[in-house]
Amino acid sequence: MSLAERKRQLVRDELTEAALQLLAFQGFEETTIDQMAAAAGVSRRTFFRYFQSKEDVIIEFLSDLGRQLSDGLSARPAAEPPAVALQQTLRVFTDTFWEHPEKSRRLTKIMVGTPALLARYLERQVTWRATLTTGLAARMSTDPVPDLRPAVLVAVAFAAFDTALTRWAEDDAADLDTLLTACFAAAFPPAS
Amino acid sequence: MSLAERKRQLVRDELTEAALQLLAFQGFEETTIDQMAAAAGVSRRTFFRYFQSKEDVIIEFLSDLGRQLSDGLSARPAAEPPAVALQQTLRVFTDTFWEHPEKSRRLTKIMVGTPALLARYLERQVTWRATLTTGLAARMSTDPVPDLRPAVLVAVAFAAFDTALTRWAEDDAADLDTLLTACFAAAFPPAS
Repeated sequence: MSLAERKRQLVRDELTEAALQLLAFQGFEETTIDQMAAAAGVSRRTFFRYFQSKEDVIIEFLSDLGRQLSDGLSARPAAEPPAVALQQTLRVFTDTFWEHPEKSRRLTKIMVGTPALLARYLERQVTWRATLTTGLAARMSTDPVPDLRPAVLVAVAFAAFDTALTRWAEDDAADLDTLLTACFAAAFPPAS
Repeated sequence: MSLAERKRQLVRDELTEAALQLLAFQGFEETTIDQMAAAAGVSRRTFFRYFQSKEDVIIEFLSDLGRQLSDGLSARPAAEPPAVALQQTLRVFTDTFWEHPEKSRRLTKIMVGTPALLARYLERQVTWRATLTTGLAARMSTDPVPDLRPAVLVAVAFAAFDTALTRWAEDDAADLDTLLTACFAAAFPPAS
C-alpha cells in the first residue's frame, strides 16, 4: 500500500470509529453527517471524499464482499457437498471480524438494529445470492433455470448465516463461531 | 363492509390499478405521486388520505400479513412437522394471489425488481420472522433463546418462499404453486 493509500485508509478508519462512537450514544437516525465529520476532525467536504452517505460509513465493509464470496466458492474443493461449500464460503464474511471482534459486533448491532441499514445489507445480499447461485449451479453441473435447487440452497445458507449474525448482535456473551455452526446444522440437517 | 368502507376500497383499488399501469410503462423511480393521483382521477391530497408514500401503493397488500401469518401458524395441527406447518402458513401470503393472478404477478414483478420496494418487503419480513419464530418455538416446546432451531427453520422457510416468488416474477410461464412445492422440497429435504 502506498503512502497516499495508507493516509486515505487512516482517515477512513478515523471517520468510521468516530461515527461508531456517536451512533452508540445517539442512534443512527439522530446522527448527522456534520456530527460524524466534526467528531473525526474533518470537514463535511472531506467526509464526502470518503463516503457517499451516512449509511456508507457503516456498510462500506460490505463493498468488496460480492467478489470475495464468489472467489471463495470457486476455491472450495469440487467434491465438497453444496451445504458445506456454502458454509465455508460465507465464512469469508466473518473472517474479517476476528481481527476487530469488538468493533465488528458494534457494527453488526447497528446494522441489524437500524431498518435503513438492514435494508441496504439485504439489498446487497440479493446480488450476492445471484452470483453464488450461478457458481453453485456450475459446481452441481446443473442449470439454475429450471433447476431451483442451487438458488434454494444459497438462500438457505444465507438464512442460517443471518440468523447467527442477528443472535450474535443481540447477545454480547455469544460466540459467533458456535452460533454459525449451530445455525448451519439446523438449516442443513446431516441427511441432506 | 359498510358503504363508506366499500367506497374507500374502491378508490384504493383504483389508485393501485392506475399506479400499476403507469409503473409498467415508466418504472417505479420515474413515476411520481402526482402522476399516480392524476391517472386515478383524484387529487394529490386524496392520494395521501389512502397512502403514506409511493411505496405504500405497491406494498400495502403486505400490511395485514403479519397477523395473518401468526394466526395461520396457530391454526396448523399440533402434530404437523415444523417444515410442513411453515409451508402451509406461508400459503396465507399467496392465497390472496389466486383471486387476481395477473395483478399479483405484476405487483410481485415490480416489488422484486425495484430495490426500494424489495427493501421494504425484506424489512417487514424481519418482523414476520420474529413473530413466527415465537409461534414455532411454542409448537416445538422449546425456548427460542438459546435454541436456534425455530429461528433457523423460519428463516429457511422464507428462503424457499422468496426463491419461488422471485422465479415466478421472472418467468411468465411458471406456475407459482409448482414453484413453491419445488422450493420447499429443496429447502426441507424429506429426511429432516
